[in-house]
Amino acid sequence: MIYLTRIEHFNAAHRLYNEHWDEEKNISIFGKCANQNWHGHNYELHVTVKGKANPETGFIMNAKELSRLIKEKITDVLDHRNLNVDVPFLKGLQPSTEVLAKCIWQQLEPSIKECQLHCIKLIETHAIYVEYFGEE
Amino acid sequence: MIYLTRIEHFNAAHRLYNEHWDEEKNISIFGKCANQNWHGHNYELHVTVKGKANPETGFIMNAKELSRLIKEKITDVLDHRNLNVDVPFLKGLQPSTEVLAKCIWQQLEPSIKECQLHCIKLIETHAIYVEYFGEE
Amino acid sequence: MIYLTRIEHFNAAHRLYNEHWDEEKNISIFGKCANQNWHGHNYELHVTVKGKANPETGFIMNAKELSRLIKEKITDVLDHRNLNVDVPFLKGLQPSTEVLAKCIWQQLEPSIKECQLHCIKLIETHAIYVEYFGEE
Amino acid sequence: MIYLTRIEHFNAAHRLYNEHWDEEKNISIFGKCANQNWHGHNYELHVTVKGKANPETGFIMNAKELSRLIKEKITDVLDHRNLNVDVPFLKGLQPSTEVLAKCIWQQLEPSIKECQLHCIKLIETHAIYVEYFGEE
Amino acid sequence: MIYLTRIEHFNAAHRLYNEHWDEEKNISIFGKCANQNWHGHNYELHVTVKGKANPETGFIMNAKELSRLIKEKITDVLDHRNLNVDVPFLKGLQPSTEVLAKCIWQQLEPSIKECQLHCIKLIETHAIYVEYFGEE
Amino acid sequence: MIYLTRIEHFNAAHRLYNEHWDEEKNISIFGKCANQNWHGHNYELHVTVKGKANPETGFIMNAKELSRLIKEKITDVLDHRNLNVDVPFLKGLQPSTEVLAKCIWQQLEPSIKECQLHCIKLIETHAIYVEYFGEE
Repeated sequence: MIYLTRIEHFNAAHRLYNEHWDEEKNISIFGKCANQNWHGHNYELHVTVKGKANPETGFIMNAKELSRLIKEKITDVLDHRNLNVDVPFLKGLQPSTEVLAKCIWQQLEPSIKECQLHCIKLIETHAIYVEYFGEE
Repeated sequence: MIYLTRIEHFNAAHRLYNEHWDEEKNISIFGKCANQNWHGHNYELHVTVKGKANPETGFIMNAKELSRLIKEKITDVLDHRNLNVDVPFLKGLQPSTEVLAKCIWQQLEPSIKECQLHCIKLIETHAIYVEYFGEE
Repeated sequence: MIYLTRIEHFNAAHRLYNEHWDEEKNISIFGKCANQNWHGHNYELHVTVKGKANPETGFIMNAKELSRLIKEKITDVLDHRNLNVDVPFLKGLQPSTEVLAKCIWQQLEPSIKECQLHCIKLIETHAIYVEYFGEE
Repeated sequence: MIYLTRIEHFNAAHRLYNEHWDEEKNISIFGKCANQNWHGHNYELHVTVKGKANPETGFIMNAKELSRLIKEKITDVLDHRNLNVDVPFLKGLQPSTEVLAKCIWQQLEPSIKECQLHCIKLIETHAIYVEYFGEE
Repeated sequence: MIYLTRIEHFNAAHRLYNEHWDEEKNISIFGKCANQNWHGHNYELHVTVKGKANPETGFIMNAKELSRLIKEKITDVLDHRNLNVDVPFLKGLQPSTEVLAKCIWQQLEPSIKECQLHCIKLIETHAIYVEYFGEE
Repeated sequence: MIYLTRIEHFNAAHRLYNEHWDEEKNISIFGKCANQNWHGHNYELHVTVKGKANPETGFIMNAKELSRLIKEKITDVLDHRNLNVDVPFLKGLQPSTEVLAKCIWQQLEPSIKECQLHCIKLIETHAIYVEYFGEE
């Protein structure tokens, strides 16, 4: 069993806000992240798959094909978008890094066929990152 | 003459769009950066000052004071904001990295008194950065 | 189950030395790290917690609260200090990166209440880091 | 149980090519990586060992000794070499990052005596890395 | 005057060798870099251009166009190639980082029309980089 | 004219303190950096030399020779030392990053003979670095 990681990037706007709360409670929980005019991040996405190396290629999965899948399912949908407004698979959800990582897993997992999806790591800032391993 | 650099961070939303152009021309020039619902970045800001080291302190300027000034004049104004909407000193300007770097210089320069502002370096993504040295 | 990591920094002096050994044995085991006048490092600390995302906030724990706890319990105590001399929770211990990571876990773990502490990762130099997962 | 990682570097040439396939199939699978005149990488190698901290030293293993072992068994053999041609332990194998990580484990594991080898992480480019934990 | 930098990557094999010298002298000067079966690197290329920001776009040059030019003139020619064998513009030259940076300048400079090429920075390893500013 | 940079590392303890001032003034200027029991840093040192590439080697200076010189003159003297106590060339000086960069220039400059020393860049923390170009 070997683990292969491909790193991709996307830049997006978002806002953390719970519409069932008043402004004061939103500010007390989310602080500057609740700014009504949005803010944004450069997200660095690490997608890790695991499997056995094919002896003919030495690959558990072709990293170029993994990159193509991430582009098709994830970065083409998220890059230069507003996570609260523009992204069908995030509709009605709080676009925190935790929720975003889990949704990226759900979008990508059905397309990984030769091997298994192992981890979505999402780096939001120079000080915060999140990992999701498909665990309930 | 010694050069001292302090690195700070801010996260902001923006959009590149020229309202004197139609949608098609905006897309042809700015591509995804014109998305009407915004996108955003983690900006890494390097502020470089130059001067002679004070023999009593060994400093050309106290790096903590430089950090405080950057916070007061720049990151408190830009962090978790929308560069097109929320920032008085960017009103009416295209918030490209080039323009933003120049405006940061103009905001910060009058407050650097013990030594001289030398460079504003602004890293927008893992692949793009801009430097401004106060040259017309 | 999602994993959230917050990165913080501290700078400290230390020395590796076993006072039950003579100078020669200390040098043979610890080399330059035994220098009696100390040396030091910029430590980069990754604190990882795990839990389920709260549907109201999207958070497993507020990253700002995690940062505040790390500051209160760890970096306010270690930053700009001498690990052999100044730190109550390291008294009588060898301040290796391994021991330091384990002690940081012990200091922090009782304060993580909404979710669980998962990992302390401590980067000592550009070539060495340590991870502790609370395993005996 | 604590985990200690040492990072080392080597630069090597390689080519991905299956000699049982014709040129066309090689290109379709390996693309530019099949170039007959080779290409190369700066490999960053993370070797992680695990064990209990010795109370006399605070170490699970002396990081200098770990570095010496990696140099003797791995980087002296791989650095500034051609992975397809020059390396006895890769003879007849496809020198993909996956296969290389597994072979590094096999070379290094018998020499780790005070504690246990836990992970070989091999970073091939700014966008691809592989991890191997000794799992069949 | 503002400076804009675009970062791109390429991976290549090379060898440092002077065919007018015998093997012994080559080894004494170039060491492991003279290995007859080649070695290789991940090169990180920073291309800096300078000019005035266009008030309509905020750009001194469209970073996407700069990226396209670097791809066409440089990385499509160098990526996954052997610098001693495969690259027309390096024929007969020693492919050191210094020479490579100067040749990249010469290939790129005629195509930069809206503004001026300012610097080619080429990072060869984690410990070595070269800069060329077009100075004779 | 081409610029070549070699990166090296050293780890050291220091303290910022002016013995002509009382404790209160020292704390007001240097804050935590005045801690009497020292603190420390991982310093990353970039040494840049400039010159013309030798057509026989492609080098302006052999990077291995530059590395050997930095080791002999600088890192062997500073690594795992106390900058206030252990280093002859810093005696009686305030070991700020500014002063340290200037002293490294003075130690190294007489030994650079084939080409010219251009810049000493010294990275003290993840947020502060200093550059010295030999300017009075």
